[in-house]
Amino acid sequence: MKIFAYGIREDEEPSLKKWEENNPDVEVEYTKNTLTADSARLAEGADGVVTLQTSAYTREALEVLKKLGITKISIRNVGFDNFNFKDLNDLGFSLTNVPVYSPNAIAEHTVILMGRLLRRVPEFDQKMDNGDFTWSPTIGKEYREQTVGVVGTGHIGRVVIKILQGFGAKVVAYDVYHNQDIEKQGLYVDSLEELYKQSDIITLHVPLFDSNKHMINDQAIEQMKDGVYIINCARGELIDTNALIKGLDSGKIAGAGLDVLDNENSVFGKVWSSVENIPDEKIRNLAERINVIITPHSAFYTETAIHNMINTAFDSNKELIEGQQPSTLVDTKA
Amino acid sequence: MKIFAYGIREDEEPSLKKWEENNPDVEVEYTKNTLTADSARLAEGADGVVTLQTSAYTREALEVLKKLGITKISIRNVGFDNFNFKDLNDLGFSLTNVPVYSPNAIAEHTVILMGRLLRRVPEFDQKMDNGDFTWSPTIGKEYREQTVGVVGTGHIGRVVIKILQGFGAKVVAYDVYHNQDIEKQGLYVDSLEELYKQSDIITLHVPLFDSNKHMINDQAIEQMKDGVYIINCARGELIDTNALIKGLDSGKIAGAGLDVLDNENSVFGKVWSSVENIPDEKIRNLAERINVIITPHSAFYTETAIHNMINTAFDSNKELIEGQQPSTLVDTKA
Ligand SMILES: NC(=O)c1ccc[n+]([C@@H]2O[C@H](COP(=O)([O-])OP(=O)(O)OC[C@H]3O[C@@H](n4cnc5c(N)ncnc54)[C@H](O)[C@@H]3O)[C@@H](O)[C@H]2O)c1
Ligand SMILES: NC(=O)c1ccc[n+]([C@@H]2O[C@H](COP(=O)([O-])OP(=O)(O)OC[C@H]3O[C@@H](n4cnc5c(N)ncnc54)[C@H](O)[C@@H]3O)[C@@H](O)[C@H]2O)c1
Repeated sequence: MKIFAYGIREDEEPSLKKWEENNPDVEVEYTKNTLTADSARLAEGADGVVTLQTSAYTREALEVLKKLGITKISIRNVGFDNFNFKDLNDLGFSLTNVPVYSPNAIAEHTVILMGRLLRRVPEFDQKMDNGDFTWSPTIGKEYREQTVGVVGTGHIGRVVIKILQGFGAKVVAYDVYHNQDIEKQGLYVDSLEELYKQSDIITLHVPLFDSNKHMINDQAIEQMKDGVYIINCARGELIDTNALIKGLDSGKIAGAGLDVLDNENSVFGKVWSSVENIPDEKIRNLAERINVIITPHSAFYTETAIHNMINTAFDSNKELIEGQQPSTLVDTKA
Repeated sequence: MKIFAYGIREDEEPSLKKWEENNPDVEVEYTKNTLTADSARLAEGADGVVTLQTSAYTREALEVLKKLGITKISIRNVGFDNFNFKDLNDLGFSLTNVPVYSPNAIAEHTVILMGRLLRRVPEFDQKMDNGDFTWSPTIGKEYREQTVGVVGTGHIGRVVIKILQGFGAKVVAYDVYHNQDIEKQGLYVDSLEELYKQSDIITLHVPLFDSNKHMINDQAIEQMKDGVYIINCARGELIDTNALIKGLDSGKIAGAGLDVLDNENSVFGKVWSSVENIPDEKIRNLAERINVIITPHSAFYTETAIHNMINTAFDSNKELIEGQQPSTLVDTKA
């Protein structure tokens, strides 16, 4: 049995090597290139393909694979928006994804962002850069004194809650569906308005829908406490950046930790010579503030997450080849 | 009743104001100056004195207070090394301190330092400064995958353990005295050597004695895992800085988070024009490393801690004046 993999990065190689050791019956070959009509030929002789890319998968690439007798694709990430399901169905492809790879990676990043804001780490860093080894007047706050509003109690939100409880923080939560355990603990409030009213820190862990695009807008911020901190490690479009900037300007919002941003694709994943050269004016505005911490959609990026992405994708592809029905099968007919 | 306070900083004023509101029967006056033979006269008419300073309290200052009929002193911190007990006893002074003000402040700072190292925050910060918004290859590690060795399970160490357990980390602990709760959880190992052998991260929470000065030396580091992280928010002299530097150079130690340093008084609390101008060569060496995070003995510095320092010191002074025996009384006769 042979699997060919596309877009393999250096940081994935240790996990891939381990998977190969644990699956000596499978021959693995790979390239760092993405899957295109050209590179598809490299898979010749393979029974399945594992891939990951941010660009679209073309019908031409799929047709080349099909001609090579390959109809089993496993992606190493969650999102399958880069596939045209009609192409997959026309050509008889099966597709698997990795629905959950490490909620903890994102949850831990979220809580670290809170801590960096509460303890004014960017200000201390700036002092250090200037050879200033004093602590006063850069006084911090403690997690345990905060009420944290967690919006979305899915895989990630629930881990965030557990970590915050270890710190002794007070948690209030909101979700359209109530999780039994969180319900039992009595953490849910009945409305976002109530959550905004009570929270010293607000952190978002919901998917993006048309209905919640820019949910953090002028009106929502109006309902929040003075000096609130806002954390977003979910989706950039949940926040109206103009409203956020206005809130930061007025001091209503004390700080923000942002792993995702509206229009982030124009900035993230690229190297600008300096912050001043960022082409998006609003993102530049945020990036220049000492009380805003931006991370480049890196919350997920841990050794554990990468290990799980590789493992689940290769396991799933192997199962597909063996004629089994992996739990990670994507319903392309829906 | 009147209390006069020395060395009051701006960040202490909100807490002091609150204490005054809650104690309308006590008149409070204060200065930002420290307590010296000169400034002692300012306390005229007071029944007790509250103070905090890093310099020595002179016999002359105490004699002036004594002449003003003041023999009750309450310090706002833990350590009373700046007093000569013989002077206090000769002149008939009573002294109180604040033995515990917020273990959580130090514990939270400790855990945040771990997170900043695990997620390679200084490297991400440097990338951001250079306009680099990529995440690869700056891959992080998760708390929950770490075995953390906690040396000292007193007030602070126990809070560190509780927080780490919220993250799902594995904890091993060492202490010469066993705490019942930690014992019940089965966290203790029998020797420091065993703790060093098992831990991915080692964090120190013991007081300094002659017997444990430079406990983290070449030999101890030799016993640790390759790629270990070392955190010190206890006392600088617990670590032999030469050994630490050697371990960082060889890669044996992957990183360090240091709120305290051997010889820190030559550097901390002061403003150098830049890191290159730090007068201590070893501290400069550490400060220039991307995988070493130094904070200027600021772990304790939270609003909660300051509030508790003010409250306990003024409460204690009031009790002394009222002829009670506060639980914070320092035994100067021992
Ligand atoms: N920054 C990163 O690197 C990164 C990585 C992975 C996932 N994410 C994002 O994190 C978010 C959460 O992921 P997850 O795995 O926890 O998802 P999940 O599906 O497990 O949980 C989402 C929760 O949100 C709730 N929800 C949906 N709409 C809601 C609304 N309008 N109001 C309140 N609650 C609502 C759902 O009931 C569910 O409980 C997603 O948006 C995902 O895109 C970010
Ligand atoms: N960085 C800061 O801002 C800051 C602030 C406050 C305290 N501290 C330091 O934190 C340290 C711990 O403070 P705490 O309040 O938890 O103290 P604590 O007295 O409550 O606990 C200390 C623990 O260490 C144990 N111990 C003593 N000697 C030991 C040894 N040789 N080996 C192993 N265990 C030993 C004791 O049994 C005790 O359980 C102190 O050194 C203190 O100076 C630092």
